[in-house]
Amino acid sequence: MSNRLEPATRHYDETLQKILKISARIFAEKGYHHTSVRDISRATRKSLAGLYYYFTTKEELLYLIQERCFLTLLQRWEQAASAHKDVHARIRAFAENHLSFFLHNMHEMKVMAHEDESLSGEFQDKILVLKRRYVKVLMDLLGELQEKEGGKRVDLRVATFALFGAMNWIYTWYQPRRDLPFSQLIEQMLRLYFFGLINGAKVDKHWLTSTDRAKGDDSFSIW
Amino acid sequence: MSNRLEPATRHYDETLQKILKISARIFAEKGYHHTSVRDISRATRKSLAGLYYYFTTKEELLYLIQERCFLTLLQRWEQAASAHKDVHARIRAFAENHLSFFLHNMHEMKVMAHEDESLSGEFQDKILVLKRRYVKVLMDLLGELQEKEGGKRVDLRVATFALFGAMNWIYTWYQPRRDLPFSQLIEQMLRLYFFGLINGAKVDKHWLTSTDRAKGDDSFSIW
Repeated sequence: MSNRLEPATRHYDETLQKILKISARIFAEKGYHHTSVRDISRATRKSLAGLYYYFTTKEELLYLIQERCFLTLLQRWEQAASAHKDVHARIRAFAENHLSFFLHNMHEMKVMAHEDESLSGEFQDKILVLKRRYVKVLMDLLGELQEKEGGKRVDLRVATFALFGAMNWIYTWYQPRRDLPFSQLIEQMLRLYFFGLINGAKVDKHWLTSTDRAKGDDSFSIW
Repeated sequence: MSNRLEPATRHYDETLQKILKISARIFAEKGYHHTSVRDISRATRKSLAGLYYYFTTKEELLYLIQERCFLTLLQRWEQAASAHKDVHARIRAFAENHLSFFLHNMHEMKVMAHEDESLSGEFQDKILVLKRRYVKVLMDLLGELQEKEGGKRVDLRVATFALFGAMNWIYTWYQPRRDLPFSQLIEQMLRLYFFGLINGAKVDKHWLTSTDRAKGDDSFSIW
């Protein structure tokens, strides 16, 4: 038996959290393939032996970062969802959860987008299961909305991935000092998505009003 | 003086075109950093000396791929734009040009998205100039549309990058056998973007009708 902590416990280990946070930053800056465990050791001020207590390979480290992102997104979504019954409000809550997560964890966002295919074997399979579960949440919500609205519908895969694309692309352009503050960014994205460029800005705030989480809640780091 | 061809001429060299096309595929499959010039040599069946006639470093090769993508996008946009005066039609033409380019050049799309930051120095600067020029085309068009529509407006940077994000994300999910055929994908994306999820499917075809280029024109490879 190894003396390494099991996943469920590991996630609550503060040292591991710190290692994952720093590693995500370095992967985002240098790229996963250009980063060595020695770089992680230097940045975290942990010995190699100390690091290998938490993971056995660099790939496992990347896996742990991605796993943590998806688990956090799913857990926070479940918390947020329980407060809303209306499908509009639930979709807004999903988008807010996704955007606020990534805006507060830009390095992780970049690592998830860039290193999507750097995992292999069991690591890859496990992340794929989480990712499919996460995508299905939004796809089901959008399906439910279209069902409710009736009439012709936009293809559900196009609708789902267009929203993920619009949100996930943010890491490539968003500049906090230049662009809209976070809460307005979310509102504008949702207006655009639900009502389109032509009518988006004219629609009544109604269910576009941000929840508390989106109102400048800066504590939504996963770490 | 080197005997290497100058850029303007190089672009019309068939051998270079073939090298760029094969290299884009290998970069997309293995990742830029995991690819060696030796891999390119093997796949193109060219000697290293033969390859170095066209580029001096792997980075220059990546630069040539990206430069060619942006130049092709811009040239084809200018051709398409000259056929339309109405701003709606021009935006549709821009989106069609962008999507059809990338759907027919998925490897290049992936390389552009993934290796965005793999260039440095002068290569990086030159691509940035092209990219800004390209982004500005869409931003100006969207600004013109909003000006025309009047009233409140969606933030122009959000509007611009949300559309690029929705379109550029396609390489991560689109499966030709499973998803909508190309011309319908474009139409649905545009409906969603202009009229939103809630009204998008209900809007009259009007200016959403695809132009000839989008109607299953499979010849839109850059090579």
